[in-house]
Amino acid sequence: MTISMYQASAPRFANILNNLAAILDKAKAHAAAKKIDEQVMLSLRLYPDMFALARQVQIACDSAKGAVARLAGVEIPKHEDSEKSFDELKERIAKTLAFIATVKAAQIDGSEEKEVVLKLQGRDVPFKGLQYLLGFAWPNFYFHATTAYDILRHNGVELGKRDFIGTP
Amino acid sequence: MTISMYQASAPRFANILNNLAAILDKAKAHAAAKKIDEQVMLSLRLYPDMFALARQVQIACDSAKGAVARLAGVEIPKHEDSEKSFDELKERIAKTLAFIATVKAAQIDGSEEKEVVLKLQGRDVPFKGLQYLLGFAWPNFYFHATTAYDILRHNGVELGKRDFIGTP
Repeated sequence: MTISMYQASAPRFANILNNLAAILDKAKAHAAAKKIDEQVMLSLRLYPDMFALARQVQIACDSAKGAVARLAGVEIPKHEDSEKSFDELKERIAKTLAFIATVKAAQIDGSEEKEVVLKLQGRDVPFKGLQYLLGFAWPNFYFHATTAYDILRHNGVELGKRDFIGTP
Repeated sequence: MTISMYQASAPRFANILNNLAAILDKAKAHAAAKKIDEQVMLSLRLYPDMFALARQVQIACDSAKGAVARLAGVEIPKHEDSEKSFDELKERIAKTLAFIATVKAAQIDGSEEKEVVLKLQGRDVPFKGLQYLLGFAWPNFYFHATTAYDILRHNGVELGKRDFIGTP
């Protein structure tokens, strides 16, 4: 037995994205209880030149759908970065999850050696599928999902690591 | 072709831990340049009831060595949580990397169905190896490694995502 590329990608991104949606529910409830404008919440950041909460969620979504699409060899769906509320951010996650659900295991399995080319800082960087998934897509996805959590936690939303990890 | 449990674990944890050591180098240089006591740096946290920087690094290390040891079926090395400087935190990472390097692919490969029992909130939670690695060990490891980065970034250390992802 071994791990398939599908097992290590689509359902795992989906799991954390579902957890992130539940985290945004808690953040929305916190904002409502404290009478904080949601746009203020979405603009929170940990440092002036870091991305704000909304952008962290958008990039987590894009990182997941990009990885699934690239490994499956299908076009990456485009989602506008225009969210202005927690419900809209949750809709972004829902659209991402809906796309991930359209991709079948057979489309991703066997993509270990597939060539994936990313545009990074303006230049094309080639990866093999396995190296891309484990070495780039995963750390990038978790980096933004965790930072979204950290921004909320830093600003007083009551969350715990269990909210992030969910049901493994 | 598929992914082996070893490919998806030991070298990937090692990669991010090496990146984290380089991040700590930058944090140490920042503290020296700004004449900030290293113990102050190690005590920084994003919220009063979140773990401080030193603990985030310790848990990232423990999460990596725990995963590698459990999947390989060897005893988890014990490391005291007594670090008081960036050099000592880097030493913790180095010890973790040295342990990871002792585990051979053949010891981890085939552990997809291996029973792994974690003590979580005082109760035993059973996992299968694959579910444990992808659903618990990875998000837990990345959660603490990213939060260490976020604490430093929040406090003005000049870092970028490339420092975190390194060379995939």
